[in-house]
Amino acid sequence: MKKQIRLLGVDDAPFSFDDKVVRVIGVVMRGGEYVEGVLRRQVTIDGTDATGTCIEMIESTRHRKQLKSFILDGVSLGGFNIVDIEKIFSRTDLPVITLTRDLPDFKQIEFALKQHFKDWENRLVIMTRGQLHQVKTKHNPIYVKCAGINIDEAKEIIKLSTIRGVIPEPIRLAHLIASGITRGESYGKA
Amino acid sequence: MKKQIRLLGVDDAPFSFDDKVVRVIGVVMRGGEYVEGVLRRQVTIDGTDATGTCIEMIESTRHRKQLKSFILDGVSLGGFNIVDIEKIFSRTDLPVITLTRDLPDFKQIEFALKQHFKDWENRLVIMTRGQLHQVKTKHNPIYVKCAGINIDEAKEIIKLSTIRGVIPEPIRLAHLIASGITRGESYGKA
Repeated sequence: MKKQIRLLGVDDAPFSFDDKVVRVIGVVMRGGEYVEGVLRRQVTIDGTDATGTCIEMIESTRHRKQLKSFILDGVSLGGFNIVDIEKIFSRTDLPVITLTRDLPDFKQIEFALKQHFKDWENRLVIMTRGQLHQVKTKHNPIYVKCAGINIDEAKEIIKLSTIRGVIPEPIRLAHLIASGITRGESYGKA
Repeated sequence: MKKQIRLLGVDDAPFSFDDKVVRVIGVVMRGGEYVEGVLRRQVTIDGTDATGTCIEMIESTRHRKQLKSFILDGVSLGGFNIVDIEKIFSRTDLPVITLTRDLPDFKQIEFALKQHFKDWENRLVIMTRGQLHQVKTKHNPIYVKCAGINIDEAKEIIKLSTIRGVIPEPIRLAHLIASGITRGESYGKA
């Protein structure tokens, strides 16, 4: 696999419980090295528009033709606004990789969804669909899901786009930008 | 000089004539390679707060102690809100480098300042103070001013932080972020 493949990484901004919408930042990079573009959208907090917003970002960017993969931090944007990675792949034909540092606690998630959403079952189905792979790194393991790509290719993309730590640069940068523009200075980890 | 020195690069967002303020984005990098932080401030369009805002950004960032230079695209932020690079250096002790792709047309600038500002003379004095150096690159020459640092050191910093083209990564990225978050997708060159 080429080291310079184009990746679009996405993360959401921090938000408070008063907010209705939250910014979503996308970063287009060649591998983990060179930033080619920055995108900004918004999604409804706890809404159902995250999947559509991801599809629209992919389809409308000027970098569309060069993109080889879409990388997401976790499986939701803006609280419980679940991202349907299978749907993104089937609509755009762009392979999708999601990753998290922590093993999701699906019992706790199910409990929270039941408390807050009439359509909790649908959200849970999307969230738990597909295999969750534990991937070893030099540091702690990460948890990876993918659509339209096998786990070995996904691992390769994660590896070639990670410079320090365990988070690929496109989503690490998306996190820095999203938190920086919201709070005045970026903080923490994607 | 170490390749991994910390630099803070700053650029302003695009704005329209109806706007009163404009976002200013700062990017903290190690050399031209690794982003460590993103800052966001705002300045008044055609105001007089750009210098103070730059000083406050430098002094308040968590990366303050590591910073070796402040890099600016041009000598103003938000239209004719002139940045006094000598003042930034004297207040913060951080060397300042400004660069532009185009040789400024000071006659035209003087004409515009006279038309719009009572304090035009003061703005012009700040803008034209200090030596403007033409610096050769592989591409077109760039025009560089510096404060608290000599032109040879400034050239070295520009060289080590430029990956492609002629613009150092911290201000290239600040431009991509500022335009991306304002317009939805980044465009053009810093």
